Amino acid sequence: MMTERPELLTGERIDDLGILGWQVIQREDEFRFSLDAVLLAHFATVRSGARAADLGSGTGAVGLFLLSRGAASVSGVELNPRIAQMAERTAVLNGLSDRLNCICGDVAQIKSYGSAGAFELVTANPPYRPPSVGRISPTAGVAMARHETTAGLREFVQAASFLLRNRGRMAMIHLPERLTDICVEMRSAGLEPKRLRFVHPFSDRAPRMVLIESVKGAHAGLSVLPPLVVYQARNVYHPEVLSYYR
Amino acid sequence: MMTERPELLTGERIDDLGILGWQVIQREDEFRFSLDAVLLAHFATVRSGARAADLGSGTGAVGLFLLSRGAASVSGVELNPRIAQMAERTAVLNGLSDRLNCICGDVAQIKSYGSAGAFELVTANPPYRPPSVGRISPTAGVAMARHETTAGLREFVQAASFLLRNRGRMAMIHLPERLTDICVEMRSAGLEPKRLRFVHPFSDRAPRMVLIESVKGAHAGLSVLPPLVVYQARNVYHPEVLSYYR
Repeated sequence: MMTERPELLTGERIDDLGILGWQVIQREDEFRFSLDAVLLAHFATVRSGARAADLGSGTGAVGLFLLSRGAASVSGVELNPRIAQMAERTAVLNGLSDRLNCICGDVAQIKSYGSAGAFELVTANPPYRPPSVGRISPTAGVAMARHETTAGLREFVQAASFLLRNRGRMAMIHLPERLTDICVEMRSAGLEPKRLRFVHPFSDRAPRMVLIESVKGAHAGLSVLPPLVVYQARNVYHPEVLSYYR
Repeated sequence: MMTERPELLTGERIDDLGILGWQVIQREDEFRFSLDAVLLAHFATVRSGARAADLGSGTGAVGLFLLSRGAASVSGVELNPRIAQMAERTAVLNGLSDRLNCICGDVAQIKSYGSAGAFELVTANPPYRPPSVGRISPTAGVAMARHETTAGLREFVQAASFLLRNRGRMAMIHLPERLTDICVEMRSAGLEPKRLRFVHPFSDRAPRMVLIESVKGAHAGLSVLPPLVVYQARNVYHPEVLSYYR
């Protein structure tokens, strides 16, 4: 594939995404993409040609996976300017700058720069914990990504509702312990939870993450899917997870 | 065990509960207890000596299991007078009439006959479906038990909140598709979901039921437990389910 090679800044490196030969610019001292991004992008219902937005887009990995699954375009929103800028160069690196872009902005202020009803899919990998819970990372960028120091669950859900057209979908990954908050916030924002799947490290263990998809303006009624099991044995991914890297 | 032998009415029969030699009076043409009752009673946090109420108590099976797990007393509430009366005789049959009683009443009217804050545990096995969904059973009693023809999810949750003392627990079994409703109703009634467990027929299948326990006046934060798997193989219960019949 012919791609323009963007410049790397000091401390940056190029990591493989694991699909289609695509690559991601990341750095050690900032939030890097993990399995969560892979799971979220493969859980979301992606209609071919869909216009998608990704809230808290980080280095752009979720967006790349959504493009690989058939989305026409993905607009990322990332608060951390250094990461947003890396994601823009990642799009160039993969020859995808016409389909993937990243805005540096606060999800809580989406109405000041986003287009209401312009998207049929919004993905979100919000900070997992409220500011008071857990150790706050001394690295400001990593703290931003992990804790709700700015926009929290409520702001992410309300931003998604603003961006989605009627019947559009919001897919999110979060901690199981926040499930009640997620259900309450989604319903109060007019996003009705329709699909739920827990992510378990092993089949007999408690889930570590929850994947949830809601539909704007839908009737109540939730489909809880079979467990998503990450490991078949120690350090051996389950075939379903491996299939995401086909 | 010496027990008084209550009279059986035409159509009634005596079934084994499966524990402690206890028995249940049931009849073919009314709702009979199923695995749901066993799962609910074993999921609930039962403090030794607890005073418990059971909403939609049917033939009294949940109450018997709660007594076997250490509850001091269980007060059942059942709308169907014929079943409530059978449950009263079931208590006598097992020599437990001082610990198990059943009131014939509508859960929606709990304030007219229940004692506010008198219980530390409320269990509930509400009708699963709203009246508009699914076939309504031509047998009035069975229809009452399966569909929300009278009290629905909201009324069961609000009744539990009324009966519970602060920090008391409500344990419920319901359909996974109602999970959003459950979370929203519990939180709005001041019952914060704290423990959640899905019941799967097999480990790789979607859950058929959900068990949820909330605590009155607690802070947010939900613990999602490992899956509860009913069958290890076709017609072979999983050891965890078998252990309920020790």
